[in-house]
Amino acid sequence: MLSSGGKRLRAAITLLSAQLGDYTLEKALHAATAVELIHAASLTHDDLIDGAERRRGVVTVHAHWDHGVALMVGDYLFALAAGEMSLAPDPRIITYFSQAVMHICEGELSPVMVATPLETALEQYNAKIGAKTAVLFSAACKAGMTAGGGTQEQIDALGQFGYDLGMAFQIVDDILDFVGDEQTLGKPAGSDLRQGTITLPLIYAVEAGGGERLAAVVDSQDEAEINQAIAQIRASGIKPAQAEARRVIDRALSHLDMFPDSPARQQLGDIAAFVIERNL
Amino acid sequence: MLSSGGKRLRAAITLLSAQLGDYTLEKALHAATAVELIHAASLTHDDLIDGAERRRGVVTVHAHWDHGVALMVGDYLFALAAGEMSLAPDPRIITYFSQAVMHICEGELSPVMVATPLETALEQYNAKIGAKTAVLFSAACKAGMTAGGGTQEQIDALGQFGYDLGMAFQIVDDILDFVGDEQTLGKPAGSDLRQGTITLPLIYAVEAGGGERLAAVVDSQDEAEINQAIAQIRASGIKPAQAEARRVIDRALSHLDMFPDSPARQQLGDIAAFVIERNL
Repeated sequence: MLSSGGKRLRAAITLLSAQLGDYTLEKALHAATAVELIHAASLTHDDLIDGAERRRGVVTVHAHWDHGVALMVGDYLFALAAGEMSLAPDPRIITYFSQAVMHICEGELSPVMVATPLETALEQYNAKIGAKTAVLFSAACKAGMTAGGGTQEQIDALGQFGYDLGMAFQIVDDILDFVGDEQTLGKPAGSDLRQGTITLPLIYAVEAGGGERLAAVVDSQDEAEINQAIAQIRASGIKPAQAEARRVIDRALSHLDMFPDSPARQQLGDIAAFVIERNL
Repeated sequence: MLSSGGKRLRAAITLLSAQLGDYTLEKALHAATAVELIHAASLTHDDLIDGAERRRGVVTVHAHWDHGVALMVGDYLFALAAGEMSLAPDPRIITYFSQAVMHICEGELSPVMVATPLETALEQYNAKIGAKTAVLFSAACKAGMTAGGGTQEQIDALGQFGYDLGMAFQIVDDILDFVGDEQTLGKPAGSDLRQGTITLPLIYAVEAGGGERLAAVVDSQDEAEINQAIAQIRASGIKPAQAEARRVIDRALSHLDMFPDSPARQQLGDIAAFVIERNL
């Protein structure tokens, strides 16, 4: 699970958030380690629920061993994260991460139910990706700023930056699922659609018209129908989703305005640019 | 999960351990709450792995909803426990509990493989029930004594008391699985045997003779063979297992010798007596 790669984005934003304040590696390191362990635990259980065979092209824990092993490996990683947090300097950090995990659990059980009407679909989608991705990004930034001795106002601002960064990250992930090639994704394009998962490009494509045909394809097993739907979503759903990701990233960056210019602030901006440029 | 009952033994020994020191309810309460939440989380995942339909006669989470719900409910309860621990006064408490959970996970994946030779079987059985039950009892006592401001020597002594109490508790549980009636157990007698789980009464019955016939029954589906094996274990495996439980409880009580007599010490002794008298 840990060796299959990943960008360690959550650890990076934890350490950079601490650098906006009074940075000591020793203080921020435990929080940065904890967030990656929580992420790995969460992915292990997520893959188990989804029955995913591979992640980043590497065979998943439950597929390589069995369900019991994946369940216990996830629990073990959560406990390891708690142990790391006991070494962190501030109990608030534990509170941020424990609440984030509770949100992740709630989100896992709250699918997006409708692709239309737009307002309802967006509300469900935003709640879903907020719980799935944004709350842990937010907790990472708050933990870093807390380790860096920030004020409550600074911690809250970093929390909002992290939340919006996570939202944009997930929107781009959901875009890449439609436009990426199989080799980069480590899975076939349109996997979300095939699994009946409603994401932003689908919601916007439905809004752009032809919604009934798209709705019929969710959960379909017909390869020709699915490919037609993917083409339609690529044609009408990707651009508005990209525009939304840009708006969310701009909102994320606005939360950094209160901090004076510094290398750490610039690097957080670089990460925001990377998140959006992965496909735009 | 939480409303299906249970004796809250782990919370009780946490609070009583704190009362051996400088007791403040507010300080000990979070640790006592955390240990019950960890226990509930662990049982939820344990039932999921075992495919258990009922616990204490109440339908289990995964049987009532589904696997994904049971997985997320367990994770949620672990996170809730971490949140409680962030309110506890001492990071050592988080370390005790996180290490206990890691042991529980390791134990879950380490079954008792053999019922003979005796020495190997006992070694595997003691490691198994140590991880399954004793480490959390031990962590509960250490957390309570830590919240009560105990010295390291006092914390270690309580940890050993809790460990042995948990060992005796599990031995008695494993005895009750053979001698209890279905109504009290909430499941048929001999469930462990039916599932191929090797416990102390079986190990001692094999040692007493007729081991080959008993070994053949583990994992058997033949009801007559199983009932015959249960009768044999009742006849030759229960008494030595009860004697072992008594030895372990005496060892547990010896760790309380360093504490002056007090109502809390007496109540910990009462709990030890209850654990052993549940069936002896």
